[in-house]
Amino acid sequence: MNLLLKEKLVSYQERAEAGITRFLPPAMTRPQRLHAAMRYSLEVGGKRIRPVLVLAASEIFPSNLDPLAAAVAVECLHTYTLIHDDLPSIDNSDLRRGQPACHKQFDEPTAVLAGDALLTYAFQLLSKHYRAEPDLAVALISDLAEASGSEQLIGGQMEDVANEGKKVDADTLKFIHENKTGALLTAALTMGLRFSSPDPKQLQLIKEVGYHLGMTFQIVDDILDVTSTQEVMGKPVGNDSALEKSTYVALHGIEGAQKEAQRHMRQATGAAETLGGESLFLISLIKDLANRVQ
Amino acid sequence: MNLLLKEKLVSYQERAEAGITRFLPPAMTRPQRLHAAMRYSLEVGGKRIRPVLVLAASEIFPSNLDPLAAAVAVECLHTYTLIHDDLPSIDNSDLRRGQPACHKQFDEPTAVLAGDALLTYAFQLLSKHYRAEPDLAVALISDLAEASGSEQLIGGQMEDVANEGKKVDADTLKFIHENKTGALLTAALTMGLRFSSPDPKQLQLIKEVGYHLGMTFQIVDDILDVTSTQEVMGKPVGNDSALEKSTYVALHGIEGAQKEAQRHMRQATGAAETLGGESLFLISLIKDLANRVQ
Repeated sequence: MNLLLKEKLVSYQERAEAGITRFLPPAMTRPQRLHAAMRYSLEVGGKRIRPVLVLAASEIFPSNLDPLAAAVAVECLHTYTLIHDDLPSIDNSDLRRGQPACHKQFDEPTAVLAGDALLTYAFQLLSKHYRAEPDLAVALISDLAEASGSEQLIGGQMEDVANEGKKVDADTLKFIHENKTGALLTAALTMGLRFSSPDPKQLQLIKEVGYHLGMTFQIVDDILDVTSTQEVMGKPVGNDSALEKSTYVALHGIEGAQKEAQRHMRQATGAAETLGGESLFLISLIKDLANRVQ
Repeated sequence: MNLLLKEKLVSYQERAEAGITRFLPPAMTRPQRLHAAMRYSLEVGGKRIRPVLVLAASEIFPSNLDPLAAAVAVECLHTYTLIHDDLPSIDNSDLRRGQPACHKQFDEPTAVLAGDALLTYAFQLLSKHYRAEPDLAVALISDLAEASGSEQLIGGQMEDVANEGKKVDADTLKFIHENKTGALLTAALTMGLRFSSPDPKQLQLIKEVGYHLGMTFQIVDDILDVTSTQEVMGKPVGNDSALEKSTYVALHGIEGAQKEAQRHMRQATGAAETLGGESLFLISLIKDLANRVQ
């Protein structure tokens, strides 16, 4: 990514951060502990990939409407999934991005409810901010609700949890990847494009971009998981514990996984090129995500 | 309630049951365990008060649109709150309506995710079924999302959990009652009325009905809690444990609570009469809920 595009990325990230500050209820709102927990988890940070995708996709073609509330809604949705994933009964992770997970910083009931509240808040934001454009509002809400529902995001999470510590077959792994990660990335891009009233062909193309970006992203995650384990353990990764998990690398080996990541990356960028418009930033971002080292 | 109105109640309940069967994803949908848990918790039953309120309010004035998907959406929302309330980290209830709670029938991660999925599904249903009427769809989604958000339903639940086992002041108790129970009852009525394109004055009146119905409902709940404890314990309720909880009776005594319940009941029925239209069933239902013995 050249310097100009890097600046663009930073400016999208800054807009996302400003949107979070602006659109979330103040931490002092009653009940304070709940709102403090919602803000805590959202403000812990991260790369803001999903809101950046909303903002970037909204600028591929001209539009007069501000996509920022939609970008924040997607991040609220994503953050709720992290809070609930970290719960003791699910992944039991005490840390998230190097900070105490929500249920450690607050407590478990607060984390359950803060997750519920952020999920709900995504739909509050969309229905409030785009009410004057009801066709757009309903499309955005539908995109987000479908992507995060029981047959997609939560379904992927369910199969992931159900297969914890087991070797899974290629079909199950594909289901988990497509849904747990891919669905919301696709929704973010689709929601961004909605702001320019896309035709069905354009919607189809952005969903292809999203699908292959999601697969790229997840396969690279799996590869990094193993290679970072290798460094930490100081020995080659033959049959170690990381390989027992449900990962692409466990099924296809590192080389096979790298090949697949590159293939999906090319399909994502290819679809973005076919879509046309101002997609240079998006293409560059996809390449960066495919070649990232952390 | 006379026989004719009782038949009407049963017919609304049957429509709600049929709607749940029809609109929920089949239990065989992948992932099966998740969808089985969603259906299990919804199908365990109950009086279906919230969907009945949606259906009843939709018939106060003429309308051509089918409110059934909205009625089911409200029940999905209500059911998710029960699943999450019952979790070990919150109320730790093993039973719900005499049957194993979701986390006992399945397991805790499944219960967390099934709750998340039902919450999300409410918005999937609304955005899918009323897409051809986007103004209506956005209004319904906004009503439901606001009522179930961090400043209302989840907020009420948060303050309830935070004050578990403590004596609370009147202000806190009011906050809990208005939000944990009242907000969704009000949303159910408001959403039902939306189907006849109400004017602002009519919306204001149905919200008044909802507010006072919610207060009636919750105060009666508190009274029944104590009187049924009295029977079970076989002794007068002086300072026993039931009175230590955050209830209306603990603060105002049984007689004071009964008076308040009647006052709210009269305000609810009064607002329904002022609203006009075909509100006879609704008025009768409010009186029944105020005078119920279980």
